[in-house]
Amino acid sequence: MRRLRDLLRGAVQGGHFPGGQLPAEAELMTSHRASRATVREALALLRSEGLIERTQGVGTHVVIKPVQTSLPEAHGVIKPSRTSMLNQRMRPRELDRSVVAAPPTVAGRLGVPDGTPCLRLEYVALHDEEPVAVATNYVLFPEAAQLRDTPFVHDWYRLLDDAGVRLSDSEFIFDCELADAPLASVLGIREGVPLILLEQIIYDLAGRPFDLAFIHTRGERFRFVSRGHEELS
Amino acid sequence: MRRLRDLLRGAVQGGHFPGGQLPAEAELMTSHRASRATVREALALLRSEGLIERTQGVGTHVVIKPVQTSLPEAHGVIKPSRTSMLNQRMRPRELDRSVVAAPPTVAGRLGVPDGTPCLRLEYVALHDEEPVAVATNYVLFPEAAQLRDTPFVHDWYRLLDDAGVRLSDSEFIFDCELADAPLASVLGIREGVPLILLEQIIYDLAGRPFDLAFIHTRGERFRFVSRGHEELS
Repeated sequence: MRRLRDLLRGAVQGGHFPGGQLPAEAELMTSHRASRATVREALALLRSEGLIERTQGVGTHVVIKPVQTSLPEAHGVIKPSRTSMLNQRMRPRELDRSVVAAPPTVAGRLGVPDGTPCLRLEYVALHDEEPVAVATNYVLFPEAAQLRDTPFVHDWYRLLDDAGVRLSDSEFIFDCELADAPLASVLGIREGVPLILLEQIIYDLAGRPFDLAFIHTRGERFRFVSRGHEELS
Repeated sequence: MRRLRDLLRGAVQGGHFPGGQLPAEAELMTSHRASRATVREALALLRSEGLIERTQGVGTHVVIKPVQTSLPEAHGVIKPSRTSMLNQRMRPRELDRSVVAAPPTVAGRLGVPDGTPCLRLEYVALHDEEPVAVATNYVLFPEAAQLRDTPFVHDWYRLLDDAGVRLSDSEFIFDCELADAPLASVLGIREGVPLILLEQIIYDLAGRPFDLAFIHTRGERFRFVSRGHEELS
């Protein structure tokens, strides 16, 4: 059953079904050599995760619009391609922009004493007006001063650029979590839906970390694609 | 509350608490300027995700052992470092190794006709004897013939190497999902725990995709770290 779930999920996410219409149960049973019960269980799981809908008499169709983002684009270290979701198609809804004392975790990750002043900037990222992520950034000074009054128009990297803040490296740690009530509310999803959680650290040109972010994103919208190339030795 | 959850989770995952012991509630309230209710709610969420345990009279402690893995290592395109979890510390428990007809999703992703024969190799990855991932690989011929009878001793890349299979590129798409009953059972976790789901395609030296894998992994064990460096233009 897990295998069939993997395969159907991969096809849904990959946009393999023409017009977003899934084949009939009988066809899925034949093409995957699976029982009707197995097919139904796999479809029920995908439905519970919000990937497909089933309508009596109409059939099963895909209800998500996944957008792939290359990891270097997501890191902010290359210019987004023309077709990227980051290319001027993002708009923030700001929740908070205020100077606060760095909490212990932030201070620890950025290598400054507890309580060091930093700018907390929190926003919902909208893509074509649909919420796809919620992020909380903690930015140290002097970058905080540059960011404090700069209008936030598109995505985070555009904001850094508009504020004249340059970055060298950008690090992600990937994690996953369940949407709690506040996250579900701002993202317009059900509580308990699985989310990707990225912890990001951004470094200045001298290699000093100045920005720690917690980014909560919908796996079915932000499809991070990472490609590694063998270094022949 | 979400902010506090982010910060405590980051500290737990980052190993910031000496001896894995979390500060007392009163201390967390002071250091994070949060109410007792907020602190308790954040701790309850981390507990429900299996990251911490709370014992009456003893306190709160971390119950996970996160291991960081650089993304290039996870891609299999660089040799694992001496301290990497991939460095001979992995052992597979094979669930299935058999030649099957490629299901439609596999055929579509690998660019071959439906039903093309492939080797399905499914295993639980154990790290220091603890299950950290479940993977299902679909490998096309001729690589399937090389892999079919090669002993699987450590990790997947070691297996490819032992079988004489060379790779050029390795692509991941990151997603997240809820553990269903079969996944929870093989990973030794509760049903409904959030998991990272990686879809991987591995390419041969000529750039032809020959391996599609669905990898289900515990975010709190396999900590994927990705670092991007600004290309100065």
